[in-house]
Amino acid sequence: MYVIMVYDVNEKRVAKILKIARKYLKWVQNSVLEGELSPGKYEKLKLEVSRLIDEKEDSVRFYVMDSQKVFNLETLGVEKGEDGFIF
Amino acid sequence: MYVIMVYDVNEKRVAKILKIARKYLKWVQNSVLEGELSPGKYEKLKLEVSRLIDEKEDSVRFYVMDSQKVFNLETLGVEKGEDGFIF
Repeated sequence: MYVIMVYDVNEKRVAKILKIARKYLKWVQNSVLEGELSPGKYEKLKLEVSRLIDEKEDSVRFYVMDSQKVFNLETLGVEKGEDGFIF
Repeated sequence: MYVIMVYDVNEKRVAKILKIARKYLKWVQNSVLEGELSPGKYEKLKLEVSRLIDEKEDSVRFYVMDSQKVFNLETLGVEKGEDGFIF
């Protein structure tokens, strides 16, 4: 399955959530990671993130799809991605 | 077609890009909007955004898919969305 993860968390937790997420997914833009994940790995990612965030303040969205083939990606401007990695 | 738009732009342009994007899509989280769009409207959105951004600094990603049915959305923490609108 293919997962796109977007997050909006308190500044204090940005580095930690990114560290967790980058174990599973590829960073593509500030607050956005994506990649192929097994269902098991996806569950682990969610568990780790849920333990970290403040449920009342932070927001994390996972768009889960069968594969990368279900969408077309179009980018404008700089293609940041892992090489232009800034967190 | 269903479009998820994520953007990472210079602070100076955040308000403007959001103003443009909210004409076409629903704000769901900081730097993330999504919604149904006709191909024509999608082209207009891209044109307006491309005129605004600095190609060498800003980054905008459009995930374009046939419909919302191709993905499952899972959220952790707060569901921000238009009512909890903060830009």
